[in-house]
Amino acid sequence: MRLSRYFLPVLKETPSEAQIVSHRYMLRAGMIKQNAAGIYSWLPLGFKVLRKLENIVHEEQMRAGHVPMLMPTLQPADLWRESGRYDDYGEEMLRITDRQGRDMLYGPTNEEMITDIFRSHVGSYKDLPLTLYHIQWKFRDEMRPRFGVMRGREFFMKDGYNFDLTKEDALHAYNRHLVSYLRTYERMGLQAIPMRADSGPIGGEDTHEFLVLAETGESEVFYDSAVTDLKFGDRTIDYDNHAECAAVMEEFTTKYARTDETHDEALFNDVPEERRRTARGIEVGQIFYFGTKYSEAMGATVQGPDGKVVPVHMGSHGIGVSRLLGAIIEASHDDKGIIWPEGVTPFHCGIVNLKQGDDEADGACEALYNSLTALGLEPLYDDRNERAGGKFATMDLIGLPWRITVGPRGLKNGVVELTSRRTGESEEMAPEQAVERIAQIYKGLTVRGI
Amino acid sequence: MRLSRYFLPVLKETPSEAQIVSHRYMLRAGMIKQNAAGIYSWLPLGFKVLRKLENIVHEEQMRAGHVPMLMPTLQPADLWRESGRYDDYGEEMLRITDRQGRDMLYGPTNEEMITDIFRSHVGSYKDLPLTLYHIQWKFRDEMRPRFGVMRGREFFMKDGYNFDLTKEDALHAYNRHLVSYLRTYERMGLQAIPMRADSGPIGGEDTHEFLVLAETGESEVFYDSAVTDLKFGDRTIDYDNHAECAAVMEEFTTKYARTDETHDEALFNDVPEERRRTARGIEVGQIFYFGTKYSEAMGATVQGPDGKVVPVHMGSHGIGVSRLLGAIIEASHDDKGIIWPEGVTPFHCGIVNLKQGDDEADGACEALYNSLTALGLEPLYDDRNERAGGKFATMDLIGLPWRITVGPRGLKNGVVELTSRRTGESEEMAPEQAVERIAQIYKGLTVRGI
Repeated sequence: MRLSRYFLPVLKETPSEAQIVSHRYMLRAGMIKQNAAGIYSWLPLGFKVLRKLENIVHEEQMRAGHVPMLMPTLQPADLWRESGRYDDYGEEMLRITDRQGRDMLYGPTNEEMITDIFRSHVGSYKDLPLTLYHIQWKFRDEMRPRFGVMRGREFFMKDGYNFDLTKEDALHAYNRHLVSYLRTYERMGLQAIPMRADSGPIGGEDTHEFLVLAETGESEVFYDSAVTDLKFGDRTIDYDNHAECAAVMEEFTTKYARTDETHDEALFNDVPEERRRTARGIEVGQIFYFGTKYSEAMGATVQGPDGKVVPVHMGSHGIGVSRLLGAIIEASHDDKGIIWPEGVTPFHCGIVNLKQGDDEADGACEALYNSLTALGLEPLYDDRNERAGGKFATMDLIGLPWRITVGPRGLKNGVVELTSRRTGESEEMAPEQAVERIAQIYKGLTVRGI
Repeated sequence: MRLSRYFLPVLKETPSEAQIVSHRYMLRAGMIKQNAAGIYSWLPLGFKVLRKLENIVHEEQMRAGHVPMLMPTLQPADLWRESGRYDDYGEEMLRITDRQGRDMLYGPTNEEMITDIFRSHVGSYKDLPLTLYHIQWKFRDEMRPRFGVMRGREFFMKDGYNFDLTKEDALHAYNRHLVSYLRTYERMGLQAIPMRADSGPIGGEDTHEFLVLAETGESEVFYDSAVTDLKFGDRTIDYDNHAECAAVMEEFTTKYARTDETHDEALFNDVPEERRRTARGIEVGQIFYFGTKYSEAMGATVQGPDGKVVPVHMGSHGIGVSRLLGAIIEASHDDKGIIWPEGVTPFHCGIVNLKQGDDEADGACEALYNSLTALGLEPLYDDRNERAGGKFATMDLIGLPWRITVGPRGLKNGVVELTSRRTGESEEMAPEQAVERIAQIYKGLTVRGI
């Protein structure tokens, strides 16, 4: 993308309404614009990251054998009356009356609707196990929307639902989700720690939240520092293998890690003192096993191998896709701006032309742009007629992890400069070499999407 | 995808509520499920096609230089009061009151919001030309939702908005959209004819609708049969070149083609009698030039090169992405089911195993599955323990354009059968040869998406 043809309305001033760094930087970098309290437009740069995160979630869900679909944003109230949650949900649920006077709502989650779809179409254990998911806009009418996309009212969430014949199978689905979530967050450059949590209005016995440690997190968390040494890494896993998934669950959830909701001081004190940590965390996902709560209430049953009709065992599993942008920025920034992890950066590298209009510099930039594009990479070329200082400040603010700087002086010696946003370190090299380095860095990090 | 692990709830009976063929087949093929009047869930097969159409639209919009972003589904009513459309829209607009008592609405279109974004961030002609677009769920509270996704209430639409300094530039944007739309529809296997139309509540001087001819279309259309001979084909075009785009506009809109709204009997009679056609059409897109209607009302101005502040010239341009599924099926089916054009088919080919459980047949199917997958193709392998007749009926219903049939008898002679869904013709060949043929058919038809 050439910046002269893009829409990147960066702000020089820090917007006064933004209390936390991710909100400030998303506004300043021209990623979002507020349209109403807690309701945002995703400007091109913000949308690009959002779509990348969405695609990563799709890839990892499909890899785990989960099947993508899409439910609508609006739901009939009657479904929620069946489960008994229509009244439970209170004022956070946005209630709507259509022109025929029917009660509708803007879905905050989809347990009822997916259970209705399941009971309409599935009647035999032979169709199990089944996990369906979607990534869709949802609405919670928060009393005090704040922190930008971190606590918005209209938000983008992946929610998945497993249907299993037995509790054992459903617990395998639970473990499988934990594994797929670990992979998902790591691809995004995040460490998200599974912590035992409280199930809240979803209900159920087992639940873990995934938390990213950050000073601005809403939850207080307590953990054994050894959990931060755990990495899923690039190990391969057979998602059908119960034992393999259970072993990952065991590895990642045995050490003490809890939110304030479930914190147990006595258990915490069993952790060696030098490893006890108290911090704040941002919730970026949650998995639930709730058994037959919805299937019994709504009649979602299957005939088992023995001919008996039984309610299915279910769980639900969510990733807050839009709030992940905020979490990633909270976890990765400095005083100049955002620092995108390579796995989610909106553009793979920036190209800064120090002397726009100079034939040699323009030509070298175009050549770099074309070489990178031909390799399937997406550079952002700042081809505007601006001072170098302004161009550098913009690149630092929007946080592309790599920058190639091209100027007449370097070109005389046949070199350009490759700079790491994270370390600030620069290295001179031939343009072809810079292209090769960038290609090397992003090898295996392509997001194919669906 | 292995069918045993997918969720494809095909129906044997024809649902009584469905009046037109696309609605019937989408229900029967397990692509959609109605959740409320005019509100649908997109089951996995339906979502897969929807996402492919979305990605094709993104690719063609970006190719034309238009910039993707995303606006929210809910909008504050005040924006619509500024343009004066809050009252004009009547009962089709879904009006919502949030917990703070603020008037909101579920957006049916986004002229006001995008104009607000533009005026907040752009002040100079140097930032023009600019075309921003998004693909988002919208809502129109239709009095009588019907025809499945063709006239739903919650629908998925691409809407784009151009901002230009002069009328001439804005008309180039209009032409550029016409070209990009022709490419888009042709990639989807559709012939969509641009017809002079009425601008309705959007307003403005120039507008064309794109119509797909189909017996079940809602609009009566009148045209010179010569327009159906026009193809954009694989010609290349420079979207920045005003003359090139204007020539395509001229070529595709000079011959008589109008909807009943703008039909002119006298002009129609100038068409040679043997080329005069009356038919029905499905509207799948519309482009508008409306000048300064919104920019004046809402103060979206820029400073021109001469220092004067002037309102920008605008247009808006829409593609009905969810209704396109219906339109494609209306245009391409037979009495056994859907026939997907290769450009949008949810899976590239079906694999039918005539004897599930037979080692040789199972092995040959797995090998085909793996070879096709390794080439980046997506086969749907019917690995269920069902009769061949049922497997064929399902494949015909869901309409994959190519099917490979594998059975012990053929394998004895080293062959499988490759069948075209469109012609019904079959050919025996070695498995490797079938893979090669499928790869050849889909060469260049990959949708990369964003």
